Amino acid sequence: MATVVQKFGGTSVGDVEKIKRAADRVYQQKQQGKDVVTVVSAMGKTTDTLVDLAYQISDEPAQREMDMLLTTGEQVTISLMVMALQERGIEAVSLTGWQAGIRTEDRHGDARITNIETETIDGHLEEGKVVIVAGFQGMTEDREITTLGRGGSDTSAVALAAALKAESCSIYTDVTGVYTTDPRYIEKARKLDGITYDEMLELANLGAGVLHPRAVEFAKNYQIPLIVRSSQENVEGTLVEEDASMEQNLIVRGIAFESSVTKITVEDLPNEVGSVSGLFSKLAESGINVDIIVQQVNQHNKMNISFSIHSSSLEETLEILDREKSTLGFSAIQHEDDLSKVSIVGSGMISNPGVAADMFAVLAEKEIPIQMISTSEIKVSVVVSEPDMVNAVEALHTYFELDERIPITNES
Amino acid sequence: MATVVQKFGGTSVGDVEKIKRAADRVYQQKQQGKDVVTVVSAMGKTTDTLVDLAYQISDEPAQREMDMLLTTGEQVTISLMVMALQERGIEAVSLTGWQAGIRTEDRHGDARITNIETETIDGHLEEGKVVIVAGFQGMTEDREITTLGRGGSDTSAVALAAALKAESCSIYTDVTGVYTTDPRYIEKARKLDGITYDEMLELANLGAGVLHPRAVEFAKNYQIPLIVRSSQENVEGTLVEEDASMEQNLIVRGIAFESSVTKITVEDLPNEVGSVSGLFSKLAESGINVDIIVQQVNQHNKMNISFSIHSSSLEETLEILDREKSTLGFSAIQHEDDLSKVSIVGSGMISNPGVAADMFAVLAEKEIPIQMISTSEIKVSVVVSEPDMVNAVEALHTYFELDERIPITNES
Repeated sequence: MATVVQKFGGTSVGDVEKIKRAADRVYQQKQQGKDVVTVVSAMGKTTDTLVDLAYQISDEPAQREMDMLLTTGEQVTISLMVMALQERGIEAVSLTGWQAGIRTEDRHGDARITNIETETIDGHLEEGKVVIVAGFQGMTEDREITTLGRGGSDTSAVALAAALKAESCSIYTDVTGVYTTDPRYIEKARKLDGITYDEMLELANLGAGVLHPRAVEFAKNYQIPLIVRSSQENVEGTLVEEDASMEQNLIVRGIAFESSVTKITVEDLPNEVGSVSGLFSKLAESGINVDIIVQQVNQHNKMNISFSIHSSSLEETLEILDREKSTLGFSAIQHEDDLSKVSIVGSGMISNPGVAADMFAVLAEKEIPIQMISTSEIKVSVVVSEPDMVNAVEALHTYFELDERIPITNES
Repeated sequence: MATVVQKFGGTSVGDVEKIKRAADRVYQQKQQGKDVVTVVSAMGKTTDTLVDLAYQISDEPAQREMDMLLTTGEQVTISLMVMALQERGIEAVSLTGWQAGIRTEDRHGDARITNIETETIDGHLEEGKVVIVAGFQGMTEDREITTLGRGGSDTSAVALAAALKAESCSIYTDVTGVYTTDPRYIEKARKLDGITYDEMLELANLGAGVLHPRAVEFAKNYQIPLIVRSSQENVEGTLVEEDASMEQNLIVRGIAFESSVTKITVEDLPNEVGSVSGLFSKLAESGINVDIIVQQVNQHNKMNISFSIHSSSLEETLEILDREKSTLGFSAIQHEDDLSKVSIVGSGMISNPGVAADMFAVLAEKEIPIQMISTSEIKVSVVVSEPDMVNAVEALHTYFELDERIPITNES
């Protein structure tokens, strides 16, 4: 029988009523004659409550013990979800991460799944049961309980789908699918019927996606079709798969944007081997996340390096640069605040070399100056001033024909 | 190095402050150069909250899923306790029931421990760590999570003490030890320095003990000295062990009592093989707990059977007897309400045949009529009217020299 994997996030199982509604979604899939494996997260704010308890006891709780503590959250949900299914007359069984055979590397707080021993799940599926698995958690070879870190439940679901050779993996969430851009800010945003893994990955990495990049990568590696859909409303979601031909008329699939961007320029850095890596190693050591980097060589064997960071890292970045000024040998630092990043994403760009130029033309027409540019095969990002951000997104959304609905055929 | 096992019940780890105080107790033992294994229950009302969640979803949640749900309670406590110890500079590690090697029979909600694989605990102890184990829970051979039912954490602690050949097992609770009688009702009650397993077992079965009878039985079987003491105050507790010589001057060690007793008399039951078992099987099938039974054979091959039940079972008992009247063949039912049971317990009775007679004499002197009598080797129970209960206990407490403190030597 065809197996499907589903995942319900914390907001989708946030209280007893939502758990019951999620159970209805599981029931629907089961009624369609599928073998169903469902991954659930901890209920709503449970994790926050547990973290708070830990910090009442210790300022620096050991990561092993945090894993021990936090994994109880999903264990509560799996049992309640099974009870809700049994109330609906569905045979179901709950499994913790370790019971479900999810093995991870020996690392707490952010472990990666090494393999999944599916015997236990297979046995229950053969008996016709729905299997409810605790997401976000696994076990090491030494029988230590581990957590998978951020986006862990998505990863659990996709990894299970891969191990069980499931026909699809549905990610139930509090939005109805993947949108061309953030509907909270851009009125004309519309839900996509389909998107490729690579596009989803770019959007996820830009923070615009509802999926964790790790889970998308996993799905791409194992070619698991992902479906992003609503746990509360019974509507079609967005299908994420390899097939680049779907919606082929769309060159750009989505537009991501973020504010609180700061641009830093380091002037007159010596143009020597190791000077660029020296600069960014110092920042990386302090956990400063550097995004776009632009290099410009001057005369006199010197160069200017500009890079963007999140505005909250500005103070620390300036301190580090100040401290390392003589070692690195640059002459001055400039910074510019109140910037934003706007990115267009679409695998159609690969065969359309003029997309970046079109983007710049759209922005020029709106008289929006571009501060920085960064490109990948399926993405172009520009840094513009923050007051221009929404204008830029709206203009690009319209230009790249994202405003109107274009019919597509899903080939799932 | 000598190993000690400790157990902290739900009220002793009821909130963050209490967990910290419990950690202080663990710290003290560790400082005395012991290898320490500590069993903890779920925090205070956690179990009730989880049960409530389950019943919001299902009127009859599956026992397997209740086990899955409830075992998270202790898992939370073990991690917080370890954090509290680490804050005090003590190396510690938390283990769930299954990680600690606690294996149980294949039965949910009320499983018995079949054996304990101590390798994991031994390994941590060798590294000098304090091991914090989740009480109340274990795992079957099929890797199913089980709970041990009522008194489960006490049982976990004693079973671990037996498996680890611990020199003692301390049960930390919200009272300072075992008392001669219930100090909430009898002012002159005093804390005992020592008591035998058998006496403790009688008291525990009479509901007067702070320990679960299962745990006491386990301790007796493996000859584990138990210490009942306060988790909040640093005072000496009560030592429970085999040695009948301790406090040998005391014939009676404790007096237990309970109200809400009802006496039922079934008249003119045929004196035939199977008629008594027929009567009590019917009651047992409905879960009616019968305590004292007195049989009296009349002329004409008939008999009267009197037995005591908890008053809350009266209505159901009468219904059952009414329904079965013709089958059982008795003529009438009498019942008497507002009774109580008073029991004296002491292993010294075995060699003092006059103790029961003394008890009856004390009650006679106080003009307290006795309704029923039941004896065991180390216990005499009488049923008296409820208004006489406290008078009876006080008179017996004084007569059997429990009011004054008698010095003893602990041989631990």
